[in-house]
Amino acid sequence: MPFTVTILGCNSALPTANRNPSAQILDVKDQLYLIDCGEGTQMQMRRFKIKFNKINHIFISHLHGDHFFGLIGLLSTFGLMGRKSDLHIYAHSEIQTVLKGQLSFMKPDTTYRIVFHPLDFKKSKIILEDKRITVTSFPLLHRIPTCGFLFTEKASLPHLIKEKLDQYAIPIADRVKIKDGADFTTSEGQIILNSELVIPAVKPCSYAYCSDTAYNEDIISTISGTDLLYHEATFGNDNKSLAAITGHSTATDAATIALKAKVKQLVIGHFSARYKETFELVAEARKTFPNTEAAADGKIFTVKTSH
Amino acid sequence: MPFTVTILGCNSALPTANRNPSAQILDVKDQLYLIDCGEGTQMQMRRFKIKFNKINHIFISHLHGDHFFGLIGLLSTFGLMGRKSDLHIYAHSEIQTVLKGQLSFMKPDTTYRIVFHPLDFKKSKIILEDKRITVTSFPLLHRIPTCGFLFTEKASLPHLIKEKLDQYAIPIADRVKIKDGADFTTSEGQIILNSELVIPAVKPCSYAYCSDTAYNEDIISTISGTDLLYHEATFGNDNKSLAAITGHSTATDAATIALKAKVKQLVIGHFSARYKETFELVAEARKTFPNTEAAADGKIFTVKTSH
Repeated sequence: MPFTVTILGCNSALPTANRNPSAQILDVKDQLYLIDCGEGTQMQMRRFKIKFNKINHIFISHLHGDHFFGLIGLLSTFGLMGRKSDLHIYAHSEIQTVLKGQLSFMKPDTTYRIVFHPLDFKKSKIILEDKRITVTSFPLLHRIPTCGFLFTEKASLPHLIKEKLDQYAIPIADRVKIKDGADFTTSEGQIILNSELVIPAVKPCSYAYCSDTAYNEDIISTISGTDLLYHEATFGNDNKSLAAITGHSTATDAATIALKAKVKQLVIGHFSARYKETFELVAEARKTFPNTEAAADGKIFTVKTSH
Repeated sequence: MPFTVTILGCNSALPTANRNPSAQILDVKDQLYLIDCGEGTQMQMRRFKIKFNKINHIFISHLHGDHFFGLIGLLSTFGLMGRKSDLHIYAHSEIQTVLKGQLSFMKPDTTYRIVFHPLDFKKSKIILEDKRITVTSFPLLHRIPTCGFLFTEKASLPHLIKEKLDQYAIPIADRVKIKDGADFTTSEGQIILNSELVIPAVKPCSYAYCSDTAYNEDIISTISGTDLLYHEATFGNDNKSLAAITGHSTATDAATIALKAKVKQLVIGHFSARYKETFELVAEARKTFPNTEAAADGKIFTVKTSH
């Protein structure tokens, strides 16, 4: 089953012609998780053929407009589509006040229920756990309270080897135990080791989203060893002082975090509008962390395919 | 000087991949007037190279989201850009309540002043008069209070013919009167007719925006003889009953209004997402009003060029 990230927008606040503001879709086994929802997200979803009804959870990192101005439009569209299932929004508690005027006037949620989950900006916290994933929020370092999100796939059970089940005539009751790691003892008292009976499960995938944030080593322990890290790189080293003033990172900052956290792949994004092209930012990051790619609207990063 | 309309979005509420929701720019002598501001308007402005600082007046037809969800993003961007000049917004008075949460939380207008002008949905009214144009709002027929807008260029004065000024040695004081239509009497008592002394001014241009609205003959007198009419055609005759239920028009409705109002050109827009292509809607409208074009994002309709 797939574990992929589709970039819907990877620009910072000022609008550009070819990059939308922050939004992306994490697809875990065909359940879609929307991370941030900048203006135009719903149009990007149409462009990149994202199924609206597969989204039940929306994560808003912080209340700067380029991360949530698309939310009210999406909520309205859900209403126009006659959505029935609950929609869970994980965001700063203030979001309800901010959107109150529009929510009470537009009433986008007449056919469905919106459940707001306030984020904790002081410490890491598990904010969602379902059969597919665990989502942990953790504080980032920005001008206003901001959270990163770590998505960790639930470990799946190993596969039983059919030939071995037949060979040892293993009863149904024992098969569950074997999936959980038990060895099997035959009626003759022979012990068959678990490793002979199963194909190990694929290692669970993980994805960390860190935007917006200044360079912050406090997050390293949380995102350590992650398969895929999206880390903002609003600027390059050419604008290091601007990054410091605005609470953002340079491409080198992002790469240094990736290196220290020993992640497998880094994707940089949230580019300032001053960078028409992003190859220089990627080149800068690769000096520190070679396995770096630049986000681009519509680009899909695959941690695991569906096969 | 130019008089053109650039379409930034011409779709109705449900998002599509290739049409943004309602927004357009009227350019009158390099002053830009923004009409409606659906989600994504500011990105469309970047794409189509619209100068942000040339906009001082925004007209919002009604408070359905696809006509104003892009406003808060644009206001924020104006703030990020350090805008100084006043911004005038003509809309339903309720818009301030709807946007209150975002305005007080985001404070987009710390560097400039937003002046709200409440619309009158009961009768036609001049809402703006500057040296370039007169803008008249007029009630449309929709599910909620909605206004159309008529933009009429101010008449310019005729041009004096230099050779005639020299030939008759016309004093400066008389030239102003001649521009205003007076004949000239020479010192010998000869009357020179005004028509011999001037090249008539170019006829003032006009543009009418009617979206969203059901078929409504009450608007005909207001938009009569307009150079360019944008009239919504959310549906075709294949969805006539849907148009009636939702307070929208068919392409035939739009064309009939254009015909009865004797406008010069009709542009149809605000297309339902169910129409992937719009040529059938144009074909339907042309049966009634041949000079019809379909709006498309980025398309520019020129009433008068800059030469």
